[in-house]
Amino acid sequence: MGSRDPFTEELLSLKDQVYFPGTFKVPAGIDKVIIAGMGGSGIVGRLFSELYGEKPVMVSSGYTLPEFTDAKTLVICISYSGNTAETVSSFNEAKRQGAAVVVISSGGILGAADAEAVIVPKGKSPRSAIGYMLMPLLNAFGAVSEKEKREAALLLDTLDGDNSEAEKIAAEIFSGSRMPLVYSTFPNESIAYRWNTQFNENSKILSFWGSFPELNHNNTMALKLTYRKNLLYPICLVSTTDKRILKRIKATEDVTGMKFRRVLKAKGSSPFSRALYLIHLGDYVTYYLARMRGVDPLDVSTIEELKRALK
Amino acid sequence: MGSRDPFTEELLSLKDQVYFPGTFKVPAGIDKVIIAGMGGSGIVGRLFSELYGEKPVMVSSGYTLPEFTDAKTLVICISYSGNTAETVSSFNEAKRQGAAVVVISSGGILGAADAEAVIVPKGKSPRSAIGYMLMPLLNAFGAVSEKEKREAALLLDTLDGDNSEAEKIAAEIFSGSRMPLVYSTFPNESIAYRWNTQFNENSKILSFWGSFPELNHNNTMALKLTYRKNLLYPICLVSTTDKRILKRIKATEDVTGMKFRRVLKAKGSSPFSRALYLIHLGDYVTYYLARMRGVDPLDVSTIEELKRALK
Repeated sequence: MGSRDPFTEELLSLKDQVYFPGTFKVPAGIDKVIIAGMGGSGIVGRLFSELYGEKPVMVSSGYTLPEFTDAKTLVICISYSGNTAETVSSFNEAKRQGAAVVVISSGGILGAADAEAVIVPKGKSPRSAIGYMLMPLLNAFGAVSEKEKREAALLLDTLDGDNSEAEKIAAEIFSGSRMPLVYSTFPNESIAYRWNTQFNENSKILSFWGSFPELNHNNTMALKLTYRKNLLYPICLVSTTDKRILKRIKATEDVTGMKFRRVLKAKGSSPFSRALYLIHLGDYVTYYLARMRGVDPLDVSTIEELKRALK
Repeated sequence: MGSRDPFTEELLSLKDQVYFPGTFKVPAGIDKVIIAGMGGSGIVGRLFSELYGEKPVMVSSGYTLPEFTDAKTLVICISYSGNTAETVSSFNEAKRQGAAVVVISSGGILGAADAEAVIVPKGKSPRSAIGYMLMPLLNAFGAVSEKEKREAALLLDTLDGDNSEAEKIAAEIFSGSRMPLVYSTFPNESIAYRWNTQFNENSKILSFWGSFPELNHNNTMALKLTYRKNLLYPICLVSTTDKRILKRIKATEDVTGMKFRRVLKAKGSSPFSRALYLIHLGDYVTYYLARMRGVDPLDVSTIEELKRALK
């Protein structure tokens, strides 16, 4: 890895976040969970809904909550700043609809609101605090073991030590001004979505994203007729071990003529460490691409400007 | 509208599908719903989950179902052909996990399986039978009134009679080989996703898609720095009346410098007719674009080839 900059330091902390002990008590009698959150905080809810299967977990990314929100619903409001307008509004809706409410935030309005709150360390960019916001969910629902944490931390540490593969991928995307086309595998749609949003926020470019097998029912026709190897950079992030899905990767290449630049298989033995590994790899790819493009990966000035315009 | 072809006839049937009387009995004691479906059939589940709010509705687009699937779960397996591999597998999983099961299909394996089945008219492309598959859900859960059906049918009929706006949009996309960037508004993410998949399947092109306000937390940075008005065709599909979201459309244009080519406000007074109106408009845009590009909107040969390769 090249010389350190503030964003590199942000990336290097994910392995430590895995041991963040934050948790909360899941209220008795809860039969469903809604996670309210946007962007770099909301991704945590999407990821958790794919890693935890014992209760229904739905993600809400707006100002309002579904009508079925009731006293048997736990609404978890996640906002790193604690001030996200949509999530503050969802918090108020949850209270009004009589739900049990928990907050995960570093402070702000939500950190001080009338609800059990897990306060996470301040001062990071929300998308680099994904571990701080995810672990309290997994801890509270007993959805991760100490062994899984150790494995994940080890894998993340390895990536921090050698991410030359990520740098190569970024260089290939950069060299042809290519547009990333990122696919992940069911049920981990959130991994492709995370890469997409990191391309948006860190590298300041748009990207296409989707997930096997769903993409086979729509993207496939477009890939056959419009795939241009010099314009797109197709990449496949494999977290599944289901052979029925794995077969589709090669079959899709065969029938469309599109060839993935990389088929990246997750390391790790648990869905948790496999997801974090692929996510962190994307953190590095999008970081390197930002540096190559000469943009600041930490710059969110346009989003800040938008927030001011909306006040 | 120009001369008729088989696909035009497909499009013209949506207004009649609104009156499809198919329904089923929702079993007593059900506290959550999972809709299993892929592509043109799966979109029905996504749309229903946004239109119906009394019970949690989750969409599953893979071979397996969540662990929480139990006797209090209604699993609705939607596959127009009745033979979709993932949905047939999900049907078997649902039975194994002891869930209540309902099938919506035109026949095939699922149409003949051991479960209550709503059989819809055969012989269409799945994505043009969206009404046949959606109405049984809305009818069964009492989520649509006769008045709402009449309004929707009238709006769809008006679009069938004059879709010159859709033809103009298609011509603008075609003239510059532009890539569509389609945004919808919370909670109707499925409207943007439907346009995206129709661009894929009908027009055989890829497109970007997202939804307000979530996109403001990630796409915004990319739009500011990489928006090229000659490469992208940004369009906004407005189904909401929430002023907090409406404000974001103009504010996003102001801070990013991107200007929507069209901000299309839904017609109709109910979420149901508003969603169907915007979806049908996209059907026409993607159909016209296919004709301009010289591709057959009904051609799904690559998907068929893929299915054979997977056998």
